[in-house]
Amino acid sequence: MGKAPEEEHPVKALGWAATDPSGVLAPFKFSRRATGDEDVRFKILYCGICHSDLHFAKNEWGFSKYPLLPGHEITGVVTEVGSKVQKYKVGDRVGVGCLVGACHTCDNCENNVENYCPQQIQTYNSQNTDGTTTYGGYSDHMVANERYIVRIPDNLPLDAAAPLLCAGITTYSPLRYFGLDKPGMRVGVVGLGGLGHVAVKLAKAFGTIVTVISTSPSKKQEAIEVLGADSFLVSTNPEEMQAAMGTLDGIIDTVSAAHALAPLLFLLKNNGKIVMVGAPVKPLELPVFPLIIGRRMVAGSAIGGLEETQEMIDFAGKHNITPQIEVVPMDYVNTAMERLAKGDVKYRFVLDVANTLKAP
Amino acid sequence: MGKAPEEEHPVKALGWAATDPSGVLAPFKFSRRATGDEDVRFKILYCGICHSDLHFAKNEWGFSKYPLLPGHEITGVVTEVGSKVQKYKVGDRVGVGCLVGACHTCDNCENNVENYCPQQIQTYNSQNTDGTTTYGGYSDHMVANERYIVRIPDNLPLDAAAPLLCAGITTYSPLRYFGLDKPGMRVGVVGLGGLGHVAVKLAKAFGTIVTVISTSPSKKQEAIEVLGADSFLVSTNPEEMQAAMGTLDGIIDTVSAAHALAPLLFLLKNNGKIVMVGAPVKPLELPVFPLIIGRRMVAGSAIGGLEETQEMIDFAGKHNITPQIEVVPMDYVNTAMERLAKGDVKYRFVLDVANTLKAP
Repeated sequence: MGKAPEEEHPVKALGWAATDPSGVLAPFKFSRRATGDEDVRFKILYCGICHSDLHFAKNEWGFSKYPLLPGHEITGVVTEVGSKVQKYKVGDRVGVGCLVGACHTCDNCENNVENYCPQQIQTYNSQNTDGTTTYGGYSDHMVANERYIVRIPDNLPLDAAAPLLCAGITTYSPLRYFGLDKPGMRVGVVGLGGLGHVAVKLAKAFGTIVTVISTSPSKKQEAIEVLGADSFLVSTNPEEMQAAMGTLDGIIDTVSAAHALAPLLFLLKNNGKIVMVGAPVKPLELPVFPLIIGRRMVAGSAIGGLEETQEMIDFAGKHNITPQIEVVPMDYVNTAMERLAKGDVKYRFVLDVANTLKAP
Repeated sequence: MGKAPEEEHPVKALGWAATDPSGVLAPFKFSRRATGDEDVRFKILYCGICHSDLHFAKNEWGFSKYPLLPGHEITGVVTEVGSKVQKYKVGDRVGVGCLVGACHTCDNCENNVENYCPQQIQTYNSQNTDGTTTYGGYSDHMVANERYIVRIPDNLPLDAAAPLLCAGITTYSPLRYFGLDKPGMRVGVVGLGGLGHVAVKLAKAFGTIVTVISTSPSKKQEAIEVLGADSFLVSTNPEEMQAAMGTLDGIIDTVSAAHALAPLLFLLKNNGKIVMVGAPVKPLELPVFPLIIGRRMVAGSAIGGLEETQEMIDFAGKHNITPQIEVVPMDYVNTAMERLAKGDVKYRFVLDVANTLKAP
């Protein structure tokens, strides 16, 4: 056994962590490393609650390690920088997303897609190079190599900007990589949760024509009037789906529950693409004929590299895009998780960490 | 009811057709249209037996219409051209593949991918614009608009060139479209039948490093020594598959039987692609995690457009690529179909039509 989390590193830290697969979070004392030469340390002001946090807290993907301190949509203000840090200074508004490290030597890292590096270090439930566990943003402060620090544009509030660091880049990156970012293209977004509602806003900002595809007719009005979608399809309505066949250039599929791909494939034009960014645990059924007869494809995409994350948030700043959030205090986190599991949030909880995290 | 096949058109024709889902073929008298202004008529010398012919003859895909006269890998010599034909003259060595018509006005046709035109007219089991049925190449002659005629390079024999018109373009087109045609890339080919063995030869001619993936260890020696593959993986051997994880840029999957995608996905590098050109009837299981964590994709591709088909066969001519064939007489066709169903062919049967098709 190594040292206790509170003793591993020189700098005391406080957060909320789950200690078993019940997923219930409680105050947790731990520690973080001293500020290294290339490190940026910042006071955490806000942290979004991503659906992954819930999956991890409850060990729904089967590889959670406890104590587990979630949070990878983290914003705050720089309090200390290492001697070799070039891009940031004390007082800067910054954030950290899903990653805090990678190998920096593989092809992925050299091509600025640290998110596909096999040695990537995730912001929580991962292992630092010294063997200690990474702890996330449901905590008082963060320290990371400056490569993993993102500058938040001045016009974006730090609470609403936080979810961009996961939900934003997760949807921005595939829109760009798969070429679904051209004005006038027709883009579908499946699922209108934390990821989906940001995908709608980003896709609109690229100038595409956006169709939301959802099982919930009740979301139509808000999708169009508040989020700016151009149209809405109820995926359980065969007539609506039939009428929209062959109309979309691509689809960002944010649904992590089991669902049918065939009806979505038929919504695509020839050469159309479905990109999965939600991760269903069990395999989906893939009908091959609709792939072949239209040269269609089903792909996946995971967050994005750090360079692209900065590009994304600068784009969001330029277009004044922020997620719709409900700001909640730290001790509301377990209730928020319960509501999230039921889909009872529009569209992202953000923890008001700095104002509400108290020593137990 | 329309006229009998023998009376529909002015020009008498003879072939072999199936009349019911037993799939047994027998001599069949029918007719073809007179040579139109833009038409090329040619004497059929050879016709390949594609696995699709077997599926269609036995109605295994559920949309066969009888009498069904298969054959879409057709070569021969021009006997007559229409007054407006520009590219061909009597005596030219030509062929017809899977298509004999399309709308010529949609985006697909305008982009020279008639193969994705929703109004495409296939070489058999399809409907001509006059409502009559199309009949394939197991017959004495063919007539088609010159857009659908392919010139066979002088150095390619007409028997061995025939399968290029389906098996060749079906594998060439995805290698090109999905960017798997760059020297030094690592390309996998799943299944070593009619399509797969041509895929190996074409991929090698592009300068890629080719791995054959097969359930049959017995095919290894020939794959490497005769077809030129660089390596061979037995897909049922977990150690071999494990050792090859993350090594391939792309895979051409020619298998139309149900099979597992997960082990193939793990063979891919990040950003790697599996392209399905075989068409399993039932959906395959698609695990989403390997797509997401490596930005991988599963796509489909169907034959190719006519411009690209000419490009493919010119490329084959330049590199002296021909399929491995077994030439058989017309009255061997039912035996050939039985052997094909068992995989007992290296690697494509070609019917010696002109020398062996006799009036009943």
